[in-house]
Amino acid sequence: MSNSFGKILRLTTFGESHGRAIGGILDGFPGNVALDLEAIQHQLDRRKPGQSSIVTQRKESDTVQFLSGIYNGKSTGAPIGFLIENDNQKSNDYDHLKDVFRPSHADFTYQSKYKNRDHRGGGRSSARETANWVVAGALAKHLIPEIKINAYVSAVGNIRVEQPYTELNLDLIDSNMVRCPVEDKAEEMIDFIKKIRKEGDTVGGEISCVIQHVPIGLGEPIFDKLHARLGQAMLSINAVKGFEYGEGFAASRLRGSQMNDLFETDGTTKTNFSGGVQGGISNGMPIYFKVAFKPVATLMQTQTALSAEHKLIELQGKGRHDPCVVPRAVPIVEALASLVLADFTLINKSKTL
Amino acid sequence: MSNSFGKILRLTTFGESHGRAIGGILDGFPGNVALDLEAIQHQLDRRKPGQSSIVTQRKESDTVQFLSGIYNGKSTGAPIGFLIENDNQKSNDYDHLKDVFRPSHADFTYQSKYKNRDHRGGGRSSARETANWVVAGALAKHLIPEIKINAYVSAVGNIRVEQPYTELNLDLIDSNMVRCPVEDKAEEMIDFIKKIRKEGDTVGGEISCVIQHVPIGLGEPIFDKLHARLGQAMLSINAVKGFEYGEGFAASRLRGSQMNDLFETDGTTKTNFSGGVQGGISNGMPIYFKVAFKPVATLMQTQTALSAEHKLIELQGKGRHDPCVVPRAVPIVEALASLVLADFTLINKSKTL
Amino acid sequence: MSNSFGKILRLTTFGESHGRAIGGILDGFPGNVALDLEAIQHQLDRRKPGQSSIVTQRKESDTVQFLSGIYNGKSTGAPIGFLIENDNQKSNDYDHLKDVFRPSHADFTYQSKYKNRDHRGGGRSSARETANWVVAGALAKHLIPEIKINAYVSAVGNIRVEQPYTELNLDLIDSNMVRCPVEDKAEEMIDFIKKIRKEGDTVGGEISCVIQHVPIGLGEPIFDKLHARLGQAMLSINAVKGFEYGEGFAASRLRGSQMNDLFETDGTTKTNFSGGVQGGISNGMPIYFKVAFKPVATLMQTQTALSAEHKLIELQGKGRHDPCVVPRAVPIVEALASLVLADFTLINKSKTL
Amino acid sequence: MSNSFGKILRLTTFGESHGRAIGGILDGFPGNVALDLEAIQHQLDRRKPGQSSIVTQRKESDTVQFLSGIYNGKSTGAPIGFLIENDNQKSNDYDHLKDVFRPSHADFTYQSKYKNRDHRGGGRSSARETANWVVAGALAKHLIPEIKINAYVSAVGNIRVEQPYTELNLDLIDSNMVRCPVEDKAEEMIDFIKKIRKEGDTVGGEISCVIQHVPIGLGEPIFDKLHARLGQAMLSINAVKGFEYGEGFAASRLRGSQMNDLFETDGTTKTNFSGGVQGGISNGMPIYFKVAFKPVATLMQTQTALSAEHKLIELQGKGRHDPCVVPRAVPIVEALASLVLADFTLINKSKTL
Repeated sequence: MSNSFGKILRLTTFGESHGRAIGGILDGFPGNVALDLEAIQHQLDRRKPGQSSIVTQRKESDTVQFLSGIYNGKSTGAPIGFLIENDNQKSNDYDHLKDVFRPSHADFTYQSKYKNRDHRGGGRSSARETANWVVAGALAKHLIPEIKINAYVSAVGNIRVEQPYTELNLDLIDSNMVRCPVEDKAEEMIDFIKKIRKEGDTVGGEISCVIQHVPIGLGEPIFDKLHARLGQAMLSINAVKGFEYGEGFAASRLRGSQMNDLFETDGTTKTNFSGGVQGGISNGMPIYFKVAFKPVATLMQTQTALSAEHKLIELQGKGRHDPCVVPRAVPIVEALASLVLADFTLINKSKTL
Repeated sequence: MSNSFGKILRLTTFGESHGRAIGGILDGFPGNVALDLEAIQHQLDRRKPGQSSIVTQRKESDTVQFLSGIYNGKSTGAPIGFLIENDNQKSNDYDHLKDVFRPSHADFTYQSKYKNRDHRGGGRSSARETANWVVAGALAKHLIPEIKINAYVSAVGNIRVEQPYTELNLDLIDSNMVRCPVEDKAEEMIDFIKKIRKEGDTVGGEISCVIQHVPIGLGEPIFDKLHARLGQAMLSINAVKGFEYGEGFAASRLRGSQMNDLFETDGTTKTNFSGGVQGGISNGMPIYFKVAFKPVATLMQTQTALSAEHKLIELQGKGRHDPCVVPRAVPIVEALASLVLADFTLINKSKTL
Repeated sequence: MSNSFGKILRLTTFGESHGRAIGGILDGFPGNVALDLEAIQHQLDRRKPGQSSIVTQRKESDTVQFLSGIYNGKSTGAPIGFLIENDNQKSNDYDHLKDVFRPSHADFTYQSKYKNRDHRGGGRSSARETANWVVAGALAKHLIPEIKINAYVSAVGNIRVEQPYTELNLDLIDSNMVRCPVEDKAEEMIDFIKKIRKEGDTVGGEISCVIQHVPIGLGEPIFDKLHARLGQAMLSINAVKGFEYGEGFAASRLRGSQMNDLFETDGTTKTNFSGGVQGGISNGMPIYFKVAFKPVATLMQTQTALSAEHKLIELQGKGRHDPCVVPRAVPIVEALASLVLADFTLINKSKTL
Repeated sequence: MSNSFGKILRLTTFGESHGRAIGGILDGFPGNVALDLEAIQHQLDRRKPGQSSIVTQRKESDTVQFLSGIYNGKSTGAPIGFLIENDNQKSNDYDHLKDVFRPSHADFTYQSKYKNRDHRGGGRSSARETANWVVAGALAKHLIPEIKINAYVSAVGNIRVEQPYTELNLDLIDSNMVRCPVEDKAEEMIDFIKKIRKEGDTVGGEISCVIQHVPIGLGEPIFDKLHARLGQAMLSINAVKGFEYGEGFAASRLRGSQMNDLFETDGTTKTNFSGGVQGGISNGMPIYFKVAFKPVATLMQTQTALSAEHKLIELQGKGRHDPCVVPRAVPIVEALASLVLADFTLINKSKTL
């Protein structure tokens, strides 16, 4: 059951990076919704490897195939099954990892927990799984056409966007390969990632997300608060170490007299330190949140690893990996946000008498 | 369904702050477990109002009554139903709030979403709900006796504990009323909270949590990763704006060569930047995470509020409120962590053939 | 989690027959729905012991107390918590059962499974639990005011109503104490139950249920088919051994050319052998189903029982029990049907774009 | 969410009969379990069309492909994704049904509910879906190797096996094509089905199921009683109209003094009228239940159908259909029983401290 997400609109996924295919089932999708299948593939293309010089050079076409739930270009209300074939599996690249636990990977914990593990490419713990989410999120987006969701890279290492989202032109996000809407910062980030890669190292980063035109009332107290579901979703992404919304951690330093958002007569607020959510329910103001990613654990350097026989061995990093995950993670963050918001939208409808 | 939390060990709660009682049902609790009911009440006492001079002076006895699922001092495997009566409801204190939406409260969003709202004391959005969690968490703790869970206040406003948890004496947490194990910081915090209260203001803070003696293998990929469930739980607490584990947001600044935790031959790691979790599964190292709380929105000052007729009005804060929630939130963080870990412990048993 | 029922409208219950109280939480109930609390109590009164001379003579007031989720006579969208106190516990009546497993009771299986058991009055396995369902069902009924649900006793032992529901006056159901709308059959049943009781014996029976004015489209394929959910619900009632809908078991003897329901031009059907459901979804025709109850296992006779030490002992039946459960089970069947139909109604709303 | 079944071991499925493939995801399967993939295919072969002269003559290879969750012949604890391609789609066979609602089919209700429907071969409402269940059930069977599950055809129309299961040789079930262990009855049934087919008609039937070597303690009160879950599962099968266990509907005619099962000193019972379950929990005695199937609605005769424009039209049945579904439904009943019992087995492990 841990491979499912959502209450009414519910995604269940399967797949290892080096099996024949990954895929999923999106259940609870209403019938008779016209679907833009190209828009879905477009989101996959934004996530796929090899799309630019600063991401992994693995070549995967990442073409989604829909197997059910769609007829004559519209949803049928039946579960939408989909597949993405793994067409570029260089499984031999992973032979040297068969009996080795790499540092800060899931090798050791998966082996300890499940006793039988597909070591190739990380198996189930691979970020390849996130391609499934992008498909599901792009499907879900059809249910909330009026809501605008924009994620962008706000930090790579110490290179950071300092402006609040309100001062950014979000239309520029996809204008560069790092997906940062501040041009000079984007260039710095790109240069830094190239340098890091040359050193065989990796670096962390942050993604910020802004959600606009959110109707009032999305989110379900007590345990499905809008921000708690967003947090759970974001913390499901590989390498994520933190989530904050609104003023986030900075709010812990503030006084109430500084932090409170005073109302306008129309129910909007003069400021938006709260981040668009009060008591777990959207208040109609933009939602914004930030997600922290650690650096990728696979280095193109020699590192000490643990063998299955519990000996320390020197392991030379191989294969094709991202020096920094955040550029490709932008559509993933947007997809998960779409899933959460679409689910709450359907839940809200269920309460309308 | 949003008032339930957990998969196998599942808590469902009800109650408004000014109804007759709050309470909950803990389902999935195994039978024949000896229960220390005093230990449960003790945790409630750590959370209750009026316990010290820096928290709200409301007087509530917060006595839990168990109604089912326990016989002869042991669990029966039947759902454990419990109640906490609301014995100090000064509902008249809230008459002035009947048709008013306070800034940065849930008044406006609840009214917009549900159309009928118990305005007294915040109703369902009140933090009184967290008393239910403390009861459930203290019950759950019986299922994981070997795991040691310690939360503590690591920041009040700008007063911050700088040491890592490894340099702290966690036995000192309850030695002062702010629940910070660093004595001089604790004194500073207490003084600051008293000052803030005198000014009719409030302040935010942080709680850190350390979980030791965690067996390897807790947590369920993909969407029930151990840290994602902890994150969802913590983000359910009133006033929480952020969650990070391990190095958290700081990890976004690091390189892989700095962040990776190298193994010892016994499977432990030399460092623990990962925070005890890899790929969503506990690796046997201590888990640590941090939770950010915004300042309480209710001030003892005059603030501009919105009337039901959408007029701006001046509202004078009244009643008995916390100037800073973190001291009382320590047992809440521990309780939710207990629920999460106990649930994953039961799930793990289900997989043992 | 096994003490919960429903997807969007979700009931969770607790309580043993001889604890202080039983109760439940109904989550997912929309806000701002005016509630007729007397109508709810009326349904409880139809279920309660001591209401007539053919049911158990235990005296319980069975007064429901609502603790949350209702304000100013309307729902608030918060979970509705409720309690029914156990005010007539003659726990000493059960001392002789402490270390005894009665034949065809749940004593043996509960003890084997849970190792610690409240033996008094059947504990959690007592049919007292069904009072919770009646409360929840009567609440749920407010969400489907247009749907008419009528259950009635169609058999007591070999005394059977032979007419189809279409030939019955369902307004007569409550005109006699056995709740059978066919007057002469009702008299026979009553006489037979009195005779059976005098002999210290018990007898089985059947309840039929007719649901009218059902909108087209309720029910969710594949595993939440309308009839499958009704079946699961009915099979949850104590002593139930079978469920059939439409022509039920008789359909297994028919040919397709006999069984098919031909359409009228308005989409209704000339016949209704299908019982108002096609492919798991309501088709707008009346739904009808039948539930089979075994005789109560507690006899006022001496029976051989098993002791905790696995010796066979002679046990004399004591206490106040129903000689036949079906008259009091009528409101239980209706309540569960209400819960199922209301849940599907809310689910359907979630799909309306 | 309605396309999922099970709590810990959870199957989610997708697929229409005339899409590219059907398939499913089985989540919660423990790791490191050796899997006999041929045994799984064998169960599919028992269900597949064209296997004998009394079933539909459609030719489908029904070969299952596993896409994930299995490595080196053993489960990995990751979700098991699987596909069955639809290799014999004569979609043109269904052109005449595009704008027609057949009597007693799901055409009308699906169209009314979802507004967009894949009419070919019944789409999602096709019994082809049950092939998914057979795969999942055969996987689940690996988790309960000691439990013996045997279903058999106990009635075709009025031809009925009168003996109780205790007098049958269950090893003979697969010795004839109708899957009835009583040889002369089997011959009668086969002849009757052939005759019915020649007439272009169909007929209903019953399947009985016996489950032996069940450990004491499976099943979860209150709403997941073992028999209630079995009932929900069986009522999910296409064409099923009724479910009973133990003495079933006959129990409604009995007295308690006839029905009660008296104990032996070892905790078994002299009789087994209860059907192996008390209070929703297995008592160690064999479980037996019966499932009633209506006749297939598709006749090779002319029937009056409803057009999309709500006109009555004469429709000539075409295509390749089963004259009686019960022979092919035997492995389906066994598969669903396996899923239910394996799920409860895992749940029980979660409670073992």
